[in-house]
Amino acid sequence: MNQSVTANPPRIWTAALLVIGDEILSGRTQDKNVAQIATWLNVQGIRLAEVRVVADKTDAIVEAVNILRARNDYLFTTGGIGPTHDDITVDAIAEALGVAVVHHPQAVAVLERYYETRGGLTETRKRMARVPDGADLIENRMSGAPGIHIDNIFIMAGVPHITAGMLDALTGTLEGGLPVLSKTIGCWVAESEIAEVLRTAEKTHEGVAIGSYPFFREGRTGANFVVRATDPELLDRCIVDLTDALVATGRDVTAGGI
Amino acid sequence: MNQSVTANPPRIWTAALLVIGDEILSGRTQDKNVAQIATWLNVQGIRLAEVRVVADKTDAIVEAVNILRARNDYLFTTGGIGPTHDDITVDAIAEALGVAVVHHPQAVAVLERYYETRGGLTETRKRMARVPDGADLIENRMSGAPGIHIDNIFIMAGVPHITAGMLDALTGTLEGGLPVLSKTIGCWVAESEIAEVLRTAEKTHEGVAIGSYPFFREGRTGANFVVRATDPELLDRCIVDLTDALVATGRDVTAGGI
Repeated sequence: MNQSVTANPPRIWTAALLVIGDEILSGRTQDKNVAQIATWLNVQGIRLAEVRVVADKTDAIVEAVNILRARNDYLFTTGGIGPTHDDITVDAIAEALGVAVVHHPQAVAVLERYYETRGGLTETRKRMARVPDGADLIENRMSGAPGIHIDNIFIMAGVPHITAGMLDALTGTLEGGLPVLSKTIGCWVAESEIAEVLRTAEKTHEGVAIGSYPFFREGRTGANFVVRATDPELLDRCIVDLTDALVATGRDVTAGGI
Repeated sequence: MNQSVTANPPRIWTAALLVIGDEILSGRTQDKNVAQIATWLNVQGIRLAEVRVVADKTDAIVEAVNILRARNDYLFTTGGIGPTHDDITVDAIAEALGVAVVHHPQAVAVLERYYETRGGLTETRKRMARVPDGADLIENRMSGAPGIHIDNIFIMAGVPHITAGMLDALTGTLEGGLPVLSKTIGCWVAESEIAEVLRTAEKTHEGVAIGSYPFFREGRTGANFVVRATDPELLDRCIVDLTDALVATGRDVTAGGI
């Protein structure tokens, strides 16, 4: 893919995330990968456009993979790449792509080295070297089994600190656009009282998105307003104008948020 | 809906969850509603089958609502029901259902009462009384604006403690099947070493699902194994057999997990 250079509007690169795992859907495990990957993607200039969480079921994975990879620049998956019976991600993605599953020689070598002092590479452990035919590897800096890259799909571990290591290995390697910048201001105000101020600020600064995040603390109502844009000057202009508009309604505004 | 009484297999009731909000996709906010709603659904005898996270965009919400409500018994949504410009959930769901948006008289009354001592019910705040035509309300025990119920859709707040209050108000009101029970055992073992034991235990106890969740603690490798079933006797039998099989490989097993 080549990034075309256009002045306005800049191309927006998008990614989807597919979280695979009964443990998330059962409520047993609190997902941490959505926030972690979203934050990392922002820095790469890629926007996380949608997330799906599906069970360890081939049909559900195949359906999601085929829709999400087609309509986004990148698809990330987390979970289901271990050695046990409930780890079916590689098989399901190979099925979605219509390719065979093969042992990747380099992955076998990595696992042989990793398990050399850990009881040896058994047949079960060798399962973690299985990849969709044509894939290459994502370095796993935390434990043995590597992640997998094929087409625009990045197949990652489910355990968050292992995922983090794989993201680290991918940093700077993906083509993206301008990173989305954000600034936050906060106000002790019920968001319903200044909804019109927010609406006007967003409308009069084309290219920004303003999110309003209410909270209740110390018995008081407040809200943080997050302004996002790819253009730093536009972002600053909107923050200044929104701050002025809020001050004009008689409120104190806290830069950086409350 | 009537629940038919059949001995075997029991009907499985499913729900989907649609999380609506740029704040989750930007990585700014760590979602807590997936785990919270999944856990609550289990107790109601309903299985969380799939989750999607979409941006504050009408098209994305409409698409997800129409697919998810059609193939699940219930659809829950969180987020986007406040008074500000980025709160478009009600309009999008009304569009998905092909109905108008109206002010719900009871919601107006609730908001009038709530805001009586909080500066009065402004036009902006009255936005929170808007519902798809034909909807009824879900009591909000934490703050003013109620949740909304229409057809098999439950439209909830995004702020987790407000969502929790709405779930509390719904407890026991939804028809479900047998709750999914689970028991956990733990072992200081690399899951790759006992993958075959797990596979056999799942195969020989039809109706159970076994999840394997590895971890690294204190420099050691371990895993917890979660056995799930709706039949308590089957669950206990599987736990006993799996424990015996693990002990037979020379490992200590910790009941309840490590």
